[in-house]
Amino acid sequence: MITERIAALREALKSRELDALAVTKIENVRYLSGFSGSNAVGIIRSDSATLITDGRYREQAGREADGWDLVIYTKDLAAAIAEGLEGAKRAGLEDSTTLAFHRRLLGALEGVTLELTDGVVEELRTRKDAGEIELIRAAVECARRAWDTILPMIQPGVTERQLASGLDYGMMTAGADKPAFDTIVASGPNSSMPHAGVTDRELAEGDLVVIDFGALKDGYSCDVTRTVAIGEPEGRSLKIMEAVLGAWDAAYAALAPGIATADVDRAARKHLEDAGLADFFVHGLGHGVGLEVHEKPTLSYLSKDTLEPGMVFTIEPGVYVEGVAGVRHEETVFWNGEKAEILSREIGPI
Amino acid sequence: MITERIAALREALKSRELDALAVTKIENVRYLSGFSGSNAVGIIRSDSATLITDGRYREQAGREADGWDLVIYTKDLAAAIAEGLEGAKRAGLEDSTTLAFHRRLLGALEGVTLELTDGVVEELRTRKDAGEIELIRAAVECARRAWDTILPMIQPGVTERQLASGLDYGMMTAGADKPAFDTIVASGPNSSMPHAGVTDRELAEGDLVVIDFGALKDGYSCDVTRTVAIGEPEGRSLKIMEAVLGAWDAAYAALAPGIATADVDRAARKHLEDAGLADFFVHGLGHGVGLEVHEKPTLSYLSKDTLEPGMVFTIEPGVYVEGVAGVRHEETVFWNGEKAEILSREIGPI
Repeated sequence: MITERIAALREALKSRELDALAVTKIENVRYLSGFSGSNAVGIIRSDSATLITDGRYREQAGREADGWDLVIYTKDLAAAIAEGLEGAKRAGLEDSTTLAFHRRLLGALEGVTLELTDGVVEELRTRKDAGEIELIRAAVECARRAWDTILPMIQPGVTERQLASGLDYGMMTAGADKPAFDTIVASGPNSSMPHAGVTDRELAEGDLVVIDFGALKDGYSCDVTRTVAIGEPEGRSLKIMEAVLGAWDAAYAALAPGIATADVDRAARKHLEDAGLADFFVHGLGHGVGLEVHEKPTLSYLSKDTLEPGMVFTIEPGVYVEGVAGVRHEETVFWNGEKAEILSREIGPI
Repeated sequence: MITERIAALREALKSRELDALAVTKIENVRYLSGFSGSNAVGIIRSDSATLITDGRYREQAGREADGWDLVIYTKDLAAAIAEGLEGAKRAGLEDSTTLAFHRRLLGALEGVTLELTDGVVEELRTRKDAGEIELIRAAVECARRAWDTILPMIQPGVTERQLASGLDYGMMTAGADKPAFDTIVASGPNSSMPHAGVTDRELAEGDLVVIDFGALKDGYSCDVTRTVAIGEPEGRSLKIMEAVLGAWDAAYAALAPGIATADVDRAARKHLEDAGLADFFVHGLGHGVGLEVHEKPTLSYLSKDTLEPGMVFTIEPGVYVEGVAGVRHEETVFWNGEKAEILSREIGPI
């Protein structure tokens, strides 16, 4: 599949009249080469693929980046990239370096026109292949097993930190490399902060608890949120929960071949508007998930993206009323071009 | 202490003839404001400090960034920054944005000369204040407690992944927010990769096991590596262990007021040279630790840094012989200006 990815990238470069691309985003390097280390730049040309990394990764890069030429740099990465681009007329550079490094690279190049090309590889990555879907399924399975182990712990008296560390531990012992992002356990008053962290607060009767977590395994992530009620939540909290679940269903029902993701967002937002809660939905509806936990496509009313076969993304409406409660419901969804599959469906019930 | 940090920054800006700084690195924003969220830009001027963040963080930013003006942007961060810089003649911008964003910001500014000023706040951060040292001590304490819980597990048959997840869980239940970086447990043949990850390999008699871990708590990190021998390691492995520990001692002994960190690196390298192992020490000696797990100063033979009061950094010589074994020993060290303290001393013995 790596071969096909590089072939597709070469096509994309051709249509942009670029005869080389310096791949500086590490997730893109992994996508194209299989190299899983933390520092490398890939140089893709019509007849070669070169991985530039440092001495720490000599052994690992040789093993993982099958079919790639390997260059180890010691001090001057810019010079190594410039050498890799030698003879190219127009080369692309991903927009992920510092400005200072960009200037250094410009100074090292001779006769090469450098063009910022953010998004070329990311665009390819939005259409996941079968191998990638399997990797995301494997990440979901780690999250599911962790969820099952902590479900009985969700009781009054347990702290947010205990639940979060239990989830992280559960994901890792299930085979995850690590949590895909900082696990959120936001209970009671903390639940109204969409991106709360974790505190030592003890769960109490009547709390809503927003639990947002995901596993990272072999480079691929999943992302899921459950909101759990402890005992009997008060009426307004219940109304919010119902509205958020209704908004989720409305967004899911809106999925259709080629639909603008902005329209999917609008379907959820419309539902919350009817419940008088749209003002409390302060973020977008969702985001792509893959080698990054936030990647293309973007699901928001500002997005220009459309639904395409192979996309994996979250649907995660939320309502956050300061002083009352917060609720978010999130699933990782796979769109095969005709229908949707909720990859995270087995993680539940809430 | 926040007030003193901002006062020191204003002095630094004055000496650079800048009348404003846009702080885009999130660790720097935290250092200056106390805001612990993941998205914000700080604008420091001679008479104001403004925090620009998004709707998710309205509540949290108001609570944490005491004394700061708060601006919530919805779509156009560049415009919000430009507004914050209005009326300034020369403004600094940290070199942590994309090139595309930098261009957008330039387009939004009117009458302001923008200068890249990477390292101004980082430079202040190298001299930790008493509060920061306490926070790093607290992170070390989380790591120590986790280490104590996994020590009895380090036996033949346990997997690298089990040890790593046990350490991560132990740090979090001890109060850490998360591991400061991906925990490394590299056993037997894996130990010769300086930045190995974690596999499902079971530890076996005769293995050396490199365990590199650290806790992140309230924004601050620690970083420590232990190499453990399982049973009786063979003679060459033992020789490497002794040489690395000797190199560590040599580096530590070299610490002195105002010494060039390159000379500290050289002291360790010289020791390994005498043991015929210098070629296998393929990375620098160490790095500063604080709000980032890798920050200034750099301890390497290429570094221009010198030892200054308040610095916290790692000393971590390592030797990696493919097919034989790898060994690294790392402590987090605090230099008070006169003498060094090994903050991670209680994590042991190896």
